[in-house]
Amino acid sequence: MLVVQKYGGTSVRDVQRIQNVARRAIDYKKRGTDVIVVVSAMSGETDRLLSLAQNIAKFPDLRETDVLISTGEQVTSALLAISLIEMGYKAISLLADQIRIISDSTYGFARIASIEEKAVRAKLDEGNIIIVPGFQGVDESGSITTLGRGGSDTTAVALAAGLKADLCEIYTDVDGVYTTDPNICEKARRLDRISYEEMLEMASLGAKVLQIRSVELAQKYNVPILVKSSLIGEGRGTLVCKEERDMMEKVVISGITYNKNEAKITVSRVPDKPGIASKIFTALSEASIVVDMIVQNVSHDGFNDITFTVVKTDARKAFTITKAIGESIGAKVAVDEDMAKVSIVGIGMRSHSGVASKMFSVLAAEGINIQLISTSEIKISCVIESKYGELAVRALHTNFGLDAEDVTEEA
Amino acid sequence: MLVVQKYGGTSVRDVQRIQNVARRAIDYKKRGTDVIVVVSAMSGETDRLLSLAQNIAKFPDLRETDVLISTGEQVTSALLAISLIEMGYKAISLLADQIRIISDSTYGFARIASIEEKAVRAKLDEGNIIIVPGFQGVDESGSITTLGRGGSDTTAVALAAGLKADLCEIYTDVDGVYTTDPNICEKARRLDRISYEEMLEMASLGAKVLQIRSVELAQKYNVPILVKSSLIGEGRGTLVCKEERDMMEKVVISGITYNKNEAKITVSRVPDKPGIASKIFTALSEASIVVDMIVQNVSHDGFNDITFTVVKTDARKAFTITKAIGESIGAKVAVDEDMAKVSIVGIGMRSHSGVASKMFSVLAAEGINIQLISTSEIKISCVIESKYGELAVRALHTNFGLDAEDVTEEA
Repeated sequence: MLVVQKYGGTSVRDVQRIQNVARRAIDYKKRGTDVIVVVSAMSGETDRLLSLAQNIAKFPDLRETDVLISTGEQVTSALLAISLIEMGYKAISLLADQIRIISDSTYGFARIASIEEKAVRAKLDEGNIIIVPGFQGVDESGSITTLGRGGSDTTAVALAAGLKADLCEIYTDVDGVYTTDPNICEKARRLDRISYEEMLEMASLGAKVLQIRSVELAQKYNVPILVKSSLIGEGRGTLVCKEERDMMEKVVISGITYNKNEAKITVSRVPDKPGIASKIFTALSEASIVVDMIVQNVSHDGFNDITFTVVKTDARKAFTITKAIGESIGAKVAVDEDMAKVSIVGIGMRSHSGVASKMFSVLAAEGINIQLISTSEIKISCVIESKYGELAVRALHTNFGLDAEDVTEEA
Repeated sequence: MLVVQKYGGTSVRDVQRIQNVARRAIDYKKRGTDVIVVVSAMSGETDRLLSLAQNIAKFPDLRETDVLISTGEQVTSALLAISLIEMGYKAISLLADQIRIISDSTYGFARIASIEEKAVRAKLDEGNIIIVPGFQGVDESGSITTLGRGGSDTTAVALAAGLKADLCEIYTDVDGVYTTDPNICEKARRLDRISYEEMLEMASLGAKVLQIRSVELAQKYNVPILVKSSLIGEGRGTLVCKEERDMMEKVVISGITYNKNEAKITVSRVPDKPGIASKIFTALSEASIVVDMIVQNVSHDGFNDITFTVVKTDARKAFTITKAIGESIGAKVAVDEDMAKVSIVGIGMRSHSGVASKMFSVLAAEGINIQLISTSEIKISCVIESKYGELAVRALHTNFGLDAEDVTEEA
């Protein structure tokens, strides 16, 4: 059996925690399981290194920034190997170029192209616990690359896929994936299991437990991921895995996500001619504004309404750009900066009708007006006034049967 | 023309100094000279990393310690490259595995076996200033190695040799090699030139300007080294180069070195039988005690006297070991912990007789008793009582004509 474990920055914050990580790896080794440990930089280290670079240049060279920040994970790797060896176990750190974690050359946001099994397998077979610095690769020319924030999750899943591991454990500072944000809804409940698809919708909607790319990769290679806390005792965590039939039958909705940093821009009385929407969204894209939801109403008497959302901090900029284009074609443009998006996610809704109408009824019963609706196969999102956001989450959580039966038991 | 520059830890202590280093490299580039810059870790960084490891293990695994501490130079390299690029120049950092600085696998004290020219040459030809982290290599298996403290000098000289550079500049916190320690003798004078051989004798005797291995390497490949300060203005520094005829004719003595941390151990009335000396020095070596001078007097009436010196901190341990062996064969063992060694170094003494006798006369005139004498081809060392050490240096400096003519002019 082979397990890949990944520990985030807070789990390796200091020497004591690194030694705790060593003990967890040893627990597996003692039971005869091979272990690969992927580590992040000690918390704060990546920021410290980046600030050095930013003292020199506002936009430091990307290739050299990767050479710089990749040292963070390298330091943790060496310290963990030293800890394991000191505890009497065989261990070796292998860097991206030694394993051959080959990526493209998009420094700062590189994507893994391939992982060679040979070097790691050989060292495993010699009885070593393998330690790999997360978040980094090497391109064809041999230059160091990094995979972007959270890239260590991707390293772990990619290694698990490449070495056909039985399980990929992601240790983080929460003890699993919750039905919704426990800070908003005290009845939030840890999920024992969630499907890749649901996790993807949850992650992209703001449940920042796993890097989205790592979930995509896990889904592609069918790597089961166990999300656990390395700090809060020995919780069971949440298993992110393939959708299973009996899972689907039981639960309609797996979770509720919530994002209150939304702004809504409405372009009304848009002449119903091809190319107008394209013009607006091309201009926004060129200004590096990420547009989230886009809704266009059915045209009536030759005019359309187009509404879209952006993150609040981009609202003013997006409004100015949209206004210029909108007014040039005689449309009216309005912005509302105090919006929240509430979404329900669940594979079960595929086979259950009436989920959407139930959501709308629950919100209506609380007197919450829905401004915008958008749906995907396993998700329904509603944009509402920001002030109702938390109320909406709690009401939906209860009405979709997600509430924990006894809060103290789960806490 | 190609110049290799090396900057020590204090020269890259912070972002401002790293930017100063960038400007020095650019000065050459502007004049059409290709530049390779070798950098150390920012001062204090190697110790910070080592202390992390030592919090985990008293003797941290050597391979992993190299993975750990090599990040120090990597960080400086990236920051220097970022600085150069920000200033509008093409620059690229190349790590040991990218260049192929191949070393043996003696982690912590590896020796460079070979350096490939190809990768560096290709990047130079594209107009880049090349930055190389000093002090590290990669072994045949691809593992990171380090070359031991001061190894960055060796990296610089090895690169200069491998790429047939015209000059290797070593920037440090002193502005060159002095005739003696300016802290002891205010008339000490910076040397414009010194031969490799003299430098080797000076370095091993305590003039800690250049790592001894780098001088040996420079001598082997005939790489001229210019030792300069990166801090004290634009001094001319000292050129360490091949012995030249006219140089030899002018100066008899190039410098005087001084080491006050010596202890002397005397074993008297040693039976004149083979194997006794071997027994003593094998035991000392097994206890990791480094013996400096060894003097054995001509045997008289079947007995010898053996005297040797060790560093003061090893004196007690060495005495205990030697006493046990000495007394088992009926010899007497004594220790004196307050010794200093004063040496005069100069290629000129090869062709000048009377240098030794002059040294002894100068010391005698000051009332200094010589306890031990040892000579090599270009060096004469005398062990004297510690309290006379500084007086001896000053007297020799004056009498061998080394005094600066006008101290203020040189300061």
